[in-house]
Amino acid sequence: MTPTHVEHIGIAVTNLDEAIRYWEDVMGLKCYAIEEVTDQKVKTAFFKCGDVKIELLEPTSPESTIATFIEKNGGKGGMHHIAFAVDNTDSALAETAEKGVRLIDKQSRRGAEGLNIGFLHPKSTLGVLTELCCK
Amino acid sequence: MTPTHVEHIGIAVTNLDEAIRYWEDVMGLKCYAIEEVTDQKVKTAFFKCGDVKIELLEPTSPESTIATFIEKNGGKGGMHHIAFAVDNTDSALAETAEKGVRLIDKQSRRGAEGLNIGFLHPKSTLGVLTELCCK
Repeated sequence: MTPTHVEHIGIAVTNLDEAIRYWEDVMGLKCYAIEEVTDQKVKTAFFKCGDVKIELLEPTSPESTIATFIEKNGGKGGMHHIAFAVDNTDSALAETAEKGVRLIDKQSRRGAEGLNIGFLHPKSTLGVLTELCCK
Repeated sequence: MTPTHVEHIGIAVTNLDEAIRYWEDVMGLKCYAIEEVTDQKVKTAFFKCGDVKIELLEPTSPESTIATFIEKNGGKGGMHHIAFAVDNTDSALAETAEKGVRLIDKQSRRGAEGLNIGFLHPKSTLGVLTELCCK
């Protein structure tokens, strides 16, 4: 597997409206989409910076993994994951598993923006929650 | 200020050699440079993925801010900062300060790869340690 590019950087936020204001007013980026991903229990907002997207994630339920992340992070948001674009998410997941990486998703599933996504476990990736994705 | 692109993603690691092996063997990226930044007390390794660099940072001293990050993170590495490329780091720092952002660096300083860098404080950036940089 060789990822073609960084598709997005996922950032957990406690309040999506406040975070959109920050990223627009201070960082000068433009929010181009807001989407609720019900099976991940998050509301997302997307920005583009060069070729990379910034994905803000606000939990919509205390059961969301983003809610858990914020709780463990002292109630604050922060950098959550890096998503790498690959040619085929399922092949890439299988290849990393063969190399001994523990997978969160054994098979790809549907994520925000209609991507096929799969996560590697941060215990196998030196602490970096890593998403692999393709269109 | 509008950043032109994400220049790099900074990742704290406890062992640079082990981390280089992971990013090369599992993630399929190629380390193209290793550099010690003495005033930041880190040893860095760089990879390119599309237009974005991955910067691994291993502390060379317990006084390094990367050592502090790892200690607070339960002895583990993880995502540390996002660096955005801007036209002029000093102007961009001044502009964000005017908007009420607390700065770690009031003026730019020399970072890895000879960039002029400056950091915004994560308490002002919704938990994301943010670097602004230019050539």
